[in-house]
Amino acid sequence: MATGKPRRALASDNWAGVHPEVIAAIAAANVGHAPSYGEDPYTKSVVEKLRDALGADEVFLVFTGTGANVIGLESLARPHHAVICASTAHIHTSECGAAEKHIGCKLLPVPTANGKITPNGIADHLHHLGNEHHVQPSAVSISQATEYGTVYSPDEVQVIANFAHDHDMQLHMDGARLANAAASLGRPLREMARDVGVDVLTFGGTKNGAIAAEAVVYFDRKLAKDFHYRRMQSMQLASKMRFIAAQFDALLTDDLWLRSATHANRMAALLGEELAQIPGITLTQKVEANEVFAIFPREHVARLQEELWFQVWNEATTEVRLVASFDTTAEDITTFVRKVREFLTQ
Amino acid sequence: MATGKPRRALASDNWAGVHPEVIAAIAAANVGHAPSYGEDPYTKSVVEKLRDALGADEVFLVFTGTGANVIGLESLARPHHAVICASTAHIHTSECGAAEKHIGCKLLPVPTANGKITPNGIADHLHHLGNEHHVQPSAVSISQATEYGTVYSPDEVQVIANFAHDHDMQLHMDGARLANAAASLGRPLREMARDVGVDVLTFGGTKNGAIAAEAVVYFDRKLAKDFHYRRMQSMQLASKMRFIAAQFDALLTDDLWLRSATHANRMAALLGEELAQIPGITLTQKVEANEVFAIFPREHVARLQEELWFQVWNEATTEVRLVASFDTTAEDITTFVRKVREFLTQ
Amino acid sequence: MATGKPRRALASDNWAGVHPEVIAAIAAANVGHAPSYGEDPYTKSVVEKLRDALGADEVFLVFTGTGANVIGLESLARPHHAVICASTAHIHTSECGAAEKHIGCKLLPVPTANGKITPNGIADHLHHLGNEHHVQPSAVSISQATEYGTVYSPDEVQVIANFAHDHDMQLHMDGARLANAAASLGRPLREMARDVGVDVLTFGGTKNGAIAAEAVVYFDRKLAKDFHYRRMQSMQLASKMRFIAAQFDALLTDDLWLRSATHANRMAALLGEELAQIPGITLTQKVEANEVFAIFPREHVARLQEELWFQVWNEATTEVRLVASFDTTAEDITTFVRKVREFLTQ
Amino acid sequence: MATGKPRRALASDNWAGVHPEVIAAIAAANVGHAPSYGEDPYTKSVVEKLRDALGADEVFLVFTGTGANVIGLESLARPHHAVICASTAHIHTSECGAAEKHIGCKLLPVPTANGKITPNGIADHLHHLGNEHHVQPSAVSISQATEYGTVYSPDEVQVIANFAHDHDMQLHMDGARLANAAASLGRPLREMARDVGVDVLTFGGTKNGAIAAEAVVYFDRKLAKDFHYRRMQSMQLASKMRFIAAQFDALLTDDLWLRSATHANRMAALLGEELAQIPGITLTQKVEANEVFAIFPREHVARLQEELWFQVWNEATTEVRLVASFDTTAEDITTFVRKVREFLTQ
Repeated sequence: MATGKPRRALASDNWAGVHPEVIAAIAAANVGHAPSYGEDPYTKSVVEKLRDALGADEVFLVFTGTGANVIGLESLARPHHAVICASTAHIHTSECGAAEKHIGCKLLPVPTANGKITPNGIADHLHHLGNEHHVQPSAVSISQATEYGTVYSPDEVQVIANFAHDHDMQLHMDGARLANAAASLGRPLREMARDVGVDVLTFGGTKNGAIAAEAVVYFDRKLAKDFHYRRMQSMQLASKMRFIAAQFDALLTDDLWLRSATHANRMAALLGEELAQIPGITLTQKVEANEVFAIFPREHVARLQEELWFQVWNEATTEVRLVASFDTTAEDITTFVRKVREFLTQ
Repeated sequence: MATGKPRRALASDNWAGVHPEVIAAIAAANVGHAPSYGEDPYTKSVVEKLRDALGADEVFLVFTGTGANVIGLESLARPHHAVICASTAHIHTSECGAAEKHIGCKLLPVPTANGKITPNGIADHLHHLGNEHHVQPSAVSISQATEYGTVYSPDEVQVIANFAHDHDMQLHMDGARLANAAASLGRPLREMARDVGVDVLTFGGTKNGAIAAEAVVYFDRKLAKDFHYRRMQSMQLASKMRFIAAQFDALLTDDLWLRSATHANRMAALLGEELAQIPGITLTQKVEANEVFAIFPREHVARLQEELWFQVWNEATTEVRLVASFDTTAEDITTFVRKVREFLTQ
Repeated sequence: MATGKPRRALASDNWAGVHPEVIAAIAAANVGHAPSYGEDPYTKSVVEKLRDALGADEVFLVFTGTGANVIGLESLARPHHAVICASTAHIHTSECGAAEKHIGCKLLPVPTANGKITPNGIADHLHHLGNEHHVQPSAVSISQATEYGTVYSPDEVQVIANFAHDHDMQLHMDGARLANAAASLGRPLREMARDVGVDVLTFGGTKNGAIAAEAVVYFDRKLAKDFHYRRMQSMQLASKMRFIAAQFDALLTDDLWLRSATHANRMAALLGEELAQIPGITLTQKVEANEVFAIFPREHVARLQEELWFQVWNEATTEVRLVASFDTTAEDITTFVRKVREFLTQ
Repeated sequence: MATGKPRRALASDNWAGVHPEVIAAIAAANVGHAPSYGEDPYTKSVVEKLRDALGADEVFLVFTGTGANVIGLESLARPHHAVICASTAHIHTSECGAAEKHIGCKLLPVPTANGKITPNGIADHLHHLGNEHHVQPSAVSISQATEYGTVYSPDEVQVIANFAHDHDMQLHMDGARLANAAASLGRPLREMARDVGVDVLTFGGTKNGAIAAEAVVYFDRKLAKDFHYRRMQSMQLASKMRFIAAQFDALLTDDLWLRSATHANRMAALLGEELAQIPGITLTQKVEANEVFAIFPREHVARLQEELWFQVWNEATTEVRLVASFDTTAEDITTFVRKVREFLTQ
């Protein structure tokens, strides 16, 4: 099927394939029989490693980021509740209403220019507390790194956590790209969530080089109550869970997660630096993780997409999104930048 | 982690690992970048192969059998509808109420001694058609092979399909073990579902040697309308779908699915034959696929489970379930049978 | 519209109209403006009276019995839970799957010959506690009086309550006909529920002579948490609630509820006694409240229905249900019984 | 309970009581027995009258406006769909997330300054058609009169209907105050919805002088399919439906609905005119139906609320909402205006 030269792209971290160490770990776990549904030694061991790395009370493995977000949030919200999030949040814009359907609650978006929200924006949704005609905010959800490739500082997260807790809400973090954020800040994982007040975390493996491996992470055991029923009922319980476990095991071994994220961030930084110097290109966001957002001249977009595919984020402004992943090469960046220069200076 | 001698079991087809050809296919698909969410050439090619093999209009890949069952049934039922199924159906007994939660509908169980249902049993739930106080049956769901390891003949399925269609219902088949049923009947896949009136099929790969690969199969394009939104919303859309596709590709290559299922069935048949000759053991079901159900003397169960783990299906009667899989060896069977004889004749 | 002689029937307590004292109370409450959504003095006063009469912590008014049952049960069950009830329970057979849709949970029916269940029947559904593949029973629901017109003794309820509480479940009582049960037992309302271990009660006014007035009654304040949001979200919050309150006020004034229920029970008893003496008629249930169940010769059913309409409960056996209400007259009974004798002896 | 002088208010049309003709109609329908659940002659007759008046295919009676909106919209949206509405829409701001919970879909708000939306605003939500990551708009919902007391012209509605239909969406109208809009425009009911392209209408009786009576109105029979099951399942089926029917019968008799709405509108107009002349008061919306929105000096709000209670709509700006109802008197208005003048000129 895959003939000719392998395709290269800057389209998304899920256009990338799987890190070879991940596949090797899957093969290594493929020995004999093992209890299903997570009762196997592979899962137990990896869950323990994740708990240690994250400073977590409970960790559960699932298949998808949407699954992790929705089931995690279901611990924090019932149907009459609301979850406050950025207007750009993946849970709000890109999960086809999964939270609304599965939890039954409402999402209340906070306008944002850079993917990040602040207590002021959250506070705008707190005007009807106790009023039965209005859904009641019970959780705040932030993305780290954000969907705009920006990164909350630990202080910024802590301020949001404090504000949430002061207002009887809890804090969920969508960490589909937590590895990139941690690499960007140079902080260990436990300082990314546990130490700054996060209550429930989605820790993503897929965008970091796994096939399909995400973890729902609880920093308060009480919130995890009944999670295992909800995971099954929400169709996210892997029967052969050892092979999800193996993926995380590979990511945790010799800090593969960090090596990959650091590399992806570096490639994005390189790309951003180069593009910033090209007249006619405007970066729209700080490059803090593995994504670059920039406005490209409309007339060049289609031809550039033929070189290395990327996504037009905003059709109206031809703001584009360029994503580096664990397997992006310096040559990918150089080639792309050369083409951009070439087309724009014709 | 997995030290010492690999564990062997007769516990379930999901205690088994992954067929090496499946892992090889995953590795082979891990080349360069590819569009995400199923727009990649691997997925397109495999979906085409599945459509050919099954005679289907539309095929969609998902992670889990419960996911496939629920989203497939959601095409056939709205909240005020009901799905009629065997009292032993996986959707009714083992999916933690996923259908009720996600579809909002009711399941109406038909008592069964061997996992199979008939029009008579279905008809018992048709007394309140048109009465707004009662949920309205819109679908029948059968498992092939059944949860008791029995297999519907093509005629039996056709009779149920005709009955369903005559009563404005549609037919869903939970084919988590369809491969085993097809191998048992010696029929090609398209004769298992399409040719006998099935409307929506869950075609299982996981129990047949994959990591996590299931397909929702539509024999009427109209029913598949909006499936892709529902798959996303139900958290069953793989971002790196090429790696689910690769698993099915391996299963379809040189009929791996059939080789594996035939082997598993043969091992179960061997086990059934041997056990039937041991005084004190009573088989409770015909061995038609890859499962053996038998009543074991209570006092020997725990010690036998230490030899090769298996599940006690019915605590009251100590009916046990013994499952063979693609990797069950004749030695596994021989060893287990020898232990049974040894313990029972002590 | 209603011309000629007013129609009489034994069809259901909701074929009956409204007690004149109820309409008078509505008219009396129709004075000036009053806060909406239950903040009015009428509602506050009636809620207080209901709390006193029932010994309740919290009482909320809603429109329908199904609404009261579903929102009440929603306090006791989340989607991965199950509610155990009689196979004849109104929530299971006659509410068009409202509980499944709105709570997302499963109902687990206990077979019953007389509408009542016992700990033994409940225990049959407790085999998979802690197993994530199975919904987890969190509540038992009983109907008092039952859908078969039988009445649990206080001791029977207490035994079920104790069993439920011993197994981490709570007890819901569907008291659509609680007034009839209380009249039958000669007990005050608080001894019907609070004193025998009920946690949440649906107290019905509609079948007892109101237009549309039901109460959800909590005997543990903690369970009522967030009820007011759920009532709004479930479309059961009356904007002009004073007029639901007025209905209950009438029922509570001079024990109208008890007078009406006693009368209805007496009419049913009379009917039962008379029918029992007619050769060819077999009563199928004890007449303990306001309903009579009997097998009628099939050939006479249609003609008798023309006299005073009633419902055929079981088409297969021509078991019929005859319901007396607050406005059933001795003449209704006499007329009907005379016709039965006349037809059966022709 | 209601002692002393009856309370007067400008708080809401549901602080008002019930029109005496409505209570009289209820009493008149209280004759003998009648089939339950809408099979009675009262309901059949009134449904026919409503169909005639509205030019509708199907009409169903329910208890509450939220119930009518949600069940009506459920005909137009499945969980992966979205409903586009004004950011001020009652379904979005004041129904405690009922649509999200019961339909499972998302609401997409269009910013509005006067409660009305236009195709431009709707079009902003149509950027992701066909993209499985995004909910798909299937319906537009508008309120007539709006929550700001403004009224869409027939042309404005038709333009929205055309735009919706051109984009594969259908049009729902929340007509909780349709009577006021019709009175404002001087148009018959059928020109308010049917003739301008509305597909499903909530026709409100409660705010127009009923106790609790709303109708879900379909202008396309196909959309009404299965409504009766959904009404039951959504707990909005009245067992003694004749008494909801009687309320609508009263409203339709001698155009009570129009007399009441015209009066309420006139009182609001009077109030608006008077307030507009008072220095320090700023009307914020055109007074086109029965509501007046105005900014009051913050320091006078509490004292004025003691005179005739009203709601502060926007705490930040002290914009208040003053609502006239069928029973608002010219004296109410005069008294209130006098107090306003008095307080503001002190």
